[in-house]
Amino acid sequence: MSYGEFAFIDRLLRPLAAGMPGALELGDDAALVTPPAGRELVLAKDALVAGIHFFAEDPAILVAGKALRVNLSDLAAMGAEPLGYLLALALPRDVEDRWLEDFVAGLRETQERFGLGLLGGDTVATPGPATLSVTVLGQLPEGTALLRSGARPGDDIWVSGRLGEAAMGLRILRGLAVPDEEAMPLVARYHTPEPRLDLGRALRGIARAAIDISDGLVADLGHICRRSGVGAIVELDRLPVSELLRGIPRWRETVLTGGDDYELLFTADAGDRTAIAALSRTLDLPLTRIGRTTVGEGVRVVDAAGRDIPIVASGWRHF
Amino acid sequence: MSYGEFAFIDRLLRPLAAGMPGALELGDDAALVTPPAGRELVLAKDALVAGIHFFAEDPAILVAGKALRVNLSDLAAMGAEPLGYLLALALPRDVEDRWLEDFVAGLRETQERFGLGLLGGDTVATPGPATLSVTVLGQLPEGTALLRSGARPGDDIWVSGRLGEAAMGLRILRGLAVPDEEAMPLVARYHTPEPRLDLGRALRGIARAAIDISDGLVADLGHICRRSGVGAIVELDRLPVSELLRGIPRWRETVLTGGDDYELLFTADAGDRTAIAALSRTLDLPLTRIGRTTVGEGVRVVDAAGRDIPIVASGWRHF
Repeated sequence: MSYGEFAFIDRLLRPLAAGMPGALELGDDAALVTPPAGRELVLAKDALVAGIHFFAEDPAILVAGKALRVNLSDLAAMGAEPLGYLLALALPRDVEDRWLEDFVAGLRETQERFGLGLLGGDTVATPGPATLSVTVLGQLPEGTALLRSGARPGDDIWVSGRLGEAAMGLRILRGLAVPDEEAMPLVARYHTPEPRLDLGRALRGIARAAIDISDGLVADLGHICRRSGVGAIVELDRLPVSELLRGIPRWRETVLTGGDDYELLFTADAGDRTAIAALSRTLDLPLTRIGRTTVGEGVRVVDAAGRDIPIVASGWRHF
Repeated sequence: MSYGEFAFIDRLLRPLAAGMPGALELGDDAALVTPPAGRELVLAKDALVAGIHFFAEDPAILVAGKALRVNLSDLAAMGAEPLGYLLALALPRDVEDRWLEDFVAGLRETQERFGLGLLGGDTVATPGPATLSVTVLGQLPEGTALLRSGARPGDDIWVSGRLGEAAMGLRILRGLAVPDEEAMPLVARYHTPEPRLDLGRALRGIARAAIDISDGLVADLGHICRRSGVGAIVELDRLPVSELLRGIPRWRETVLTGGDDYELLFTADAGDRTAIAALSRTLDLPLTRIGRTTVGEGVRVVDAAGRDIPIVASGWRHF
């Protein structure tokens, strides 16, 4: 690249910190953040590696957008509102200026959309693939965070949106043949997940436990079960899956274990069904009751007759 | 490695989060932090790549220690006290269990020494070199952060400790021949920098501007000059450099531009010389007045006769 480190920071990154006084124009040793009184800070950190978490040839604008969005999804799962983020970039020395400019354009678009700004970070060279790490900061009223550990036996289990679409988009990028007009929205769901921030915030005081579905429905529900000390039964027929998806071979496996949905999975008392239905209308976002938690442990998926459906894979392993 | 991601987190990383209730046992989507009332948070994030920022064959215990220490040095430069950290690890799939165990031992030793704990993070696989990113959190009373931008013309310029030793250690690792008994402490200074946290905290209300020397004395003083709108004159003969170092060829270049010292460089009013001398005694840490800031811009280094010494390199470029 023709940008030196300092020109890259001065010309491309610094504008992303405008409006964040604590970023100190990206010109100091660290950033300053003062949470509003009575609020606690929420911090999440994710890493993405070219060739593993995104394709090296993916448009940089989408890579940047996804890096921020998956971190924002962690805030959504806690019920937090975004404040800012730090970015560590390890980039090959031959990265093109255009890639950097597009990457920054993707950050700008995404931070403007979700109301946060760049606080600081680090830019280094790597002989390996491009590697990004985002640390995102959010805030919420003290004591209101949605945790994975709050579910009780007998809770309803809910999910937002439609499941399996991003994972199907990834299968398409890997070669699954699907007509173009059907493929494009699925691929877009993979590249541009929608962090459910408004939903997360609205669920404070309603949801007993929450998580975002990044590893796959069964795996992430399993995380809630383990942390809460409950079991779970999911009814396959209740899952919000489009007709289109149900026509694709191995759709069940994709929906149950595919990951990358970044929809919220949460549990709530049965007495809150009306409130949740109203929330769905307010947010114009499908919220679907897919099962219930139980005394016990582990996740079962059953068909309409109550028969167990074997689960082939238990979700994405990062390692 | 034989640890899966979850076993690595459960067995090795989770104990590092003991005593950090906001880490939620590393089992949730994000971490929670509530800064004490009247305090602001300080956040820094650095990335380290094997083969660039450390040698791939460096002992993992030292790599982990250095990753934390360089981030803590950013807190020291702001005058902040450590609270916790998040860690993103991108590791080759063939990383050995022993490496992971040693790495975690290095984290444990370092966090116990400096009083912080693990809050969260992410572990992923990479086809490239091991890449770490640490986000460190500190706190300080609101409005007391030491910034790079506070220097005024006529300030004294001070540095802590002795300069050039870590950079000389790196030259030794790269093949510079030095007798073993002299080499070892220099190499140790490279592997295990000392974040000057006690000094940073004590300089709140005394230092007008501060930075930690990571890029090299001239480059980092240049950062203060640019951010403060001042120039600087440094007297070579005043620099705290050991007799041993002065006997090694090209020692001036190493001291002026070598980087990796992680000593604090700060400016202060001439009226504070007595206070700073007392601080040096209290902390049992050399604090040396090496020059002064001026009206103007840029960094000059002069000899005893006041003649300019040409500066060959202007410090480490990350990129």
